[in-house]
Amino acid sequence: MTESTLTPELEAVVAGAAAAAPAYAALTPAERARVLVALGDALEAAKPRLVEIAMRETGLTEARLNGEVTRTAVQLRLFSETVMDGSYLDARIDYADPEFVLGPRPDIRRTHVPLGPIINFSASNFPFAFSVLGGDTASILAAGCPVIVKAHSGHPELSDATAEVAREALRSVGAPEGVFNLIHGREAGVAVLKDPRIKAGSFTGSIGIGRLLTDIAAARPTPIPFYGELGSVNPVFVTAAAIAERADEIASGLLTSVAGSAGQLCTKPGFIFVPAGSALPAAVAAAAGEVVEHRLLDPRIAQSFNERRDTILATPGVTAVIPGGVRFDDAGHGWASPTVVSVSLEDFRAGHQGLVEEAFGPLTILVETPEGTDLAALMPEFYEGNLSGTIHISADEATGTTANATELRALVTALAKQVGRVLFNGWSTGVAVTPAQQHGGPWPATSNDASTSVGTSAIKRFLRPVAFQNTPAAFLPEALRDENPLGLPQAISPAGQSGDWGSQYRG
Amino acid sequence: MTESTLTPELEAVVAGAAAAAPAYAALTPAERARVLVALGDALEAAKPRLVEIAMRETGLTEARLNGEVTRTAVQLRLFSETVMDGSYLDARIDYADPEFVLGPRPDIRRTHVPLGPIINFSASNFPFAFSVLGGDTASILAAGCPVIVKAHSGHPELSDATAEVAREALRSVGAPEGVFNLIHGREAGVAVLKDPRIKAGSFTGSIGIGRLLTDIAAARPTPIPFYGELGSVNPVFVTAAAIAERADEIASGLLTSVAGSAGQLCTKPGFIFVPAGSALPAAVAAAAGEVVEHRLLDPRIAQSFNERRDTILATPGVTAVIPGGVRFDDAGHGWASPTVVSVSLEDFRAGHQGLVEEAFGPLTILVETPEGTDLAALMPEFYEGNLSGTIHISADEATGTTANATELRALVTALAKQVGRVLFNGWSTGVAVTPAQQHGGPWPATSNDASTSVGTSAIKRFLRPVAFQNTPAAFLPEALRDENPLGLPQAISPAGQSGDWGSQYRG
Repeated sequence: MTESTLTPELEAVVAGAAAAAPAYAALTPAERARVLVALGDALEAAKPRLVEIAMRETGLTEARLNGEVTRTAVQLRLFSETVMDGSYLDARIDYADPEFVLGPRPDIRRTHVPLGPIINFSASNFPFAFSVLGGDTASILAAGCPVIVKAHSGHPELSDATAEVAREALRSVGAPEGVFNLIHGREAGVAVLKDPRIKAGSFTGSIGIGRLLTDIAAARPTPIPFYGELGSVNPVFVTAAAIAERADEIASGLLTSVAGSAGQLCTKPGFIFVPAGSALPAAVAAAAGEVVEHRLLDPRIAQSFNERRDTILATPGVTAVIPGGVRFDDAGHGWASPTVVSVSLEDFRAGHQGLVEEAFGPLTILVETPEGTDLAALMPEFYEGNLSGTIHISADEATGTTANATELRALVTALAKQVGRVLFNGWSTGVAVTPAQQHGGPWPATSNDASTSVGTSAIKRFLRPVAFQNTPAAFLPEALRDENPLGLPQAISPAGQSGDWGSQYRG
Repeated sequence: MTESTLTPELEAVVAGAAAAAPAYAALTPAERARVLVALGDALEAAKPRLVEIAMRETGLTEARLNGEVTRTAVQLRLFSETVMDGSYLDARIDYADPEFVLGPRPDIRRTHVPLGPIINFSASNFPFAFSVLGGDTASILAAGCPVIVKAHSGHPELSDATAEVAREALRSVGAPEGVFNLIHGREAGVAVLKDPRIKAGSFTGSIGIGRLLTDIAAARPTPIPFYGELGSVNPVFVTAAAIAERADEIASGLLTSVAGSAGQLCTKPGFIFVPAGSALPAAVAAAAGEVVEHRLLDPRIAQSFNERRDTILATPGVTAVIPGGVRFDDAGHGWASPTVVSVSLEDFRAGHQGLVEEAFGPLTILVETPEGTDLAALMPEFYEGNLSGTIHISADEATGTTANATELRALVTALAKQVGRVLFNGWSTGVAVTPAQQHGGPWPATSNDASTSVGTSAIKRFLRPVAFQNTPAAFLPEALRDENPLGLPQAISPAGQSGDWGSQYRG
């Protein structure tokens, strides 16, 4: 089981993480919460120094990066609350029932246990929130698993500096050695992913690399879950009534959402389906003056975005609403100002191989749909899965009593089949970290659409249920004891009742 | 998306299931519950006729098969209660919070939606409970997904007869056409598993076939979850004090568990670790007269079990406690009486390649461990994952205050890392269908150890979370509405609180 083709350095990392796993899993909720709070505090304390490195390495703005550090620190603290709350353990107690419908049933209790060491592949576009101490690391550590972070090549210095902050914070609270690790290089990441001691992987990045890693995880002698957050075009549907009500507000919101962080967000709205001949394109054009150019993350992404933009602009039927563009500086960095184009549904269909793919950068496509278009049928025609789908409607339509209410309901149902998050009258960028959040969606948006990578449910990716049958109290995990020492919610099935019928929550 | 290499017959089946999916998903909980109850009632009404076919095709006893039909019918009804209860939807409501720690947060609500058409590969050894209308089908239909059952080649006539019962029951309650389908043949099953309209698979069977199908599901252009329940040896640990207290009771219980259904159960205890020189082997030998020979499912399984038994008996150091054996009748059927052998831990280690594999049939191995053996370290030495792990202790040891309590706790922790269910002073065969049940375990026990194939949580395999952000009430699913028309538990995060901290259940 421990045979390995790792380099001595990587072997030490993986062996250290594996050795730390039992001790870390055995920490009390309060101790594990303390680890997370210490990391959040340390990260925030190091903000000025880390943001300075991040600006240089990623080209993202100081305001955005400052906000991202805050979000990342708060996220670590939120997960400490998740750990203390304990409802993520989904503790269930079925009392023994001599009269059970299928004959005497034993006492069965179920909780969740941490999987063990996890590898997390960092993202380029969130150097804090989806990187070394980001949401994946926070949920891995919250679940009670050691983490090995594979640094993104786009911000190696920041990754090392953040890791040093993390190590010092972990030492300060006496966390087991080996709980947190950072490695560099794609080959190193793949080698670790293949190691039998690694029990799951998480990833944020492209469909291509995501597919590669998903396949590696699935083909291991012991397959493991791989949680990849890959690509998404996040379609938006805007009704005629919404445009009549607030074209300027929608135009301005769209442009802010598309231009923010130079459009390098997995939730950037990529396609806006609008009624043909509406006032929205003109309103968008009028709002163009609001945004300034923004450096793209790295020269490779800039080149690739520039080519994608050329392809789209050269597609027959495509008109520039806001031309935008990419300017390259002497260091090879690309500075983008947002591009918005429009195209008729007919031309979109005709050129769809060239148009439907995600453009990673500040570009969006208004697709003008003729009256009578079956909106619910549009998405399945072009896409399998997406992270989000957005609908803009008028105040009147929000009552659900207008003539098009049935059509709108069909659109909601269709979107719910293809996305992880349906939203109204807002923008998909900016994903709140809350218990009900769902940041995931059918392939290729993610490699596992039963999970979320944002929100406190993200912790569930790194846990596994275990049942205890007729287990004496002295040998039960605390989460499952009658006296409920952790004070967490326990779903109780008393004797004399079957199924979930009548389960009570206590705690 | 609908290109297909299916035969016309299979294309009709898959197209029918896909067409039925939206209508079936749209049924109210009460309507879906009615479908499940109708299936349970119809199955039980057809019991005499179906059991007669099953006896002929599987060789299982009338008593066992009658009990299995009851269990399967009750299971369908239990899932109707799960559907009505609604807690499986894990409905969450985070109210908008203008003061949220990361800035104003929108209203976010989350529920679960059915995945779509599912293929379920039936098992040979449970012609009812893990076959056409078994636990997988029940949880698939309860989740709101159409099912395509691939019949097991061991009981084709029974599969057809059960399917006819199902179709009639579905017609009687007006369920959408195409919700339930039966196909025959491994190639047909593989072709359907590869079809893009199929959204998940479930399977009960061997590690070899399970690996093959898991790999096919993972390698699709759109990978899908595959829930395989594969192989398990279900280790048992018996303390010296337990043997001193009740050797005869343990011996008799063990033999009943190993001999029941001719040992053809995935939860059959395969290895019993006992203190060297204990009275248990003699007690087992004395209990041998209790059991009679039992037909094995089919000639192939009988041949394979017979060879496995020969290999084990010929391994150096192995002694027959109860020789048992297989007698072949003129039809080629094998009739087995149980075999129990013992071997020292040293000889077990020496011959372990030949001994550790699952023997599918009525055979178990007593491994005699010398005093001072680190029991917690034993399992990881030989196995990755198992469905269950059992510990037999004395009444005194159950208090957790004896000298070996620390050692026992370490064993519990070690088992919880490698199995889905830890049990005390009982036998792993006979898996209760309850909310807390966990029938699953790390590879190769299952292909997805975050899930269970028994118990009401099994429904979760066929659902996917979807969040609704700032969605007007008129467009929200009923599960997420403030007035809670379905009366299900909703986890509420009010404004002014972060994380899971202070979530309230209502409903």
